Amino acid sequence: MRSIRPVQKVIDGFEILPGIGPKSAARLAYYMLNMPQERLERFAEALENLKKDTKFCELCFNVGEEQFCPVCQDANRDKTLVCVVENALDLIAIEKSEGNKGVYHVLGGSINPMAGIGPNDIRIPQLLARLRLGEVKEVVIATNPNLEGEATAMYIVEKIKEMGLSETVKVSRIGRGLATGADIEFADGQTLLRALEGRRVM
Amino acid sequence: MRSIRPVQKVIDGFEILPGIGPKSAARLAYYMLNMPQERLERFAEALENLKKDTKFCELCFNVGEEQFCPVCQDANRDKTLVCVVENALDLIAIEKSEGNKGVYHVLGGSINPMAGIGPNDIRIPQLLARLRLGEVKEVVIATNPNLEGEATAMYIVEKIKEMGLSETVKVSRIGRGLATGADIEFADGQTLLRALEGRRVM
Repeated sequence: MRSIRPVQKVIDGFEILPGIGPKSAARLAYYMLNMPQERLERFAEALENLKKDTKFCELCFNVGEEQFCPVCQDANRDKTLVCVVENALDLIAIEKSEGNKGVYHVLGGSINPMAGIGPNDIRIPQLLARLRLGEVKEVVIATNPNLEGEATAMYIVEKIKEMGLSETVKVSRIGRGLATGADIEFADGQTLLRALEGRRVM
Repeated sequence: MRSIRPVQKVIDGFEILPGIGPKSAARLAYYMLNMPQERLERFAEALENLKKDTKFCELCFNVGEEQFCPVCQDANRDKTLVCVVENALDLIAIEKSEGNKGVYHVLGGSINPMAGIGPNDIRIPQLLARLRLGEVKEVVIATNPNLEGEATAMYIVEKIKEMGLSETVKVSRIGRGLATGADIEFADGQTLLRALEGRRVM
């Protein structure tokens, strides 16, 4: 016995999200039956407008509401220092640590051959194009300290060398104050701050 | 640094749901930024219509699309046997076990003094009114085998005695094939089937 159609549609919506299995999806849907209609409509509206009201920053690919994200728009940020992160949540975690006085480049993932994600499937070409312009003097690679994140860091370093930019651009990797296999977005600010301070030249 | 407004709205929507903390809510919202707009709109529509397209059954308070739910509409079900459950997900779990040939009464919760939920805050008055009509000959109480579920079962039995119906209505409690403290909706069909078969008179 499946749930009736209107409930099943909500279950289906939840079920495709990461970390939500069929049982949790059903629980959430039935829970929502007892929520005020106005709450459901507010949530529905937020979902519908999520992508309409947001833009990827044309420079760093962070999420914002305008052509350039709040960080790139900030005149006080050091535009010669670019911190490379996997996603926008990692950027937020690093912003909270206040360890980065520069700007960002959001890759939108990491190199993962098992999942069929190569260097050109994330925003590495855009990063290299940005470096080619010559304004950036330092790159801090803050991808996750796991297999995919390390591979991504290594690939970027190699490409910068190939492009003959290793003389003018200092490349470093975020310090391993972080436990191996951990997620940047769940690390506390202090750990992230130390990791940023303790970055090492590659 | 909070997320930008359109993203924060989606985070807020997730955060009020049971079992979803602030970090999971943020993860889900950012994940959704990479989902196709059409998927988001389908989900939004499902949420908006969830309550509009569903009705509580006027007899048993199960979730349905019409005045009476599919179980109550089924001519093959034994209308003299009522299985009392806490919520619609418990009903679905019992339906899957095929252990109930009768119909249901969905309480919409359990008596929980700590949370300020008394007998009249769930659908016990409606159950008693239904029994007063005289058609029901057997009541199987399938509330969860935990403190609140047991208290709810005891209360219902007392009320039936008080109303002088214990002569004409046989009341039983679902068999304890279930582990104490467990949730009915997560139990497997076999366990539920045995529990229904092994019910004992109260």
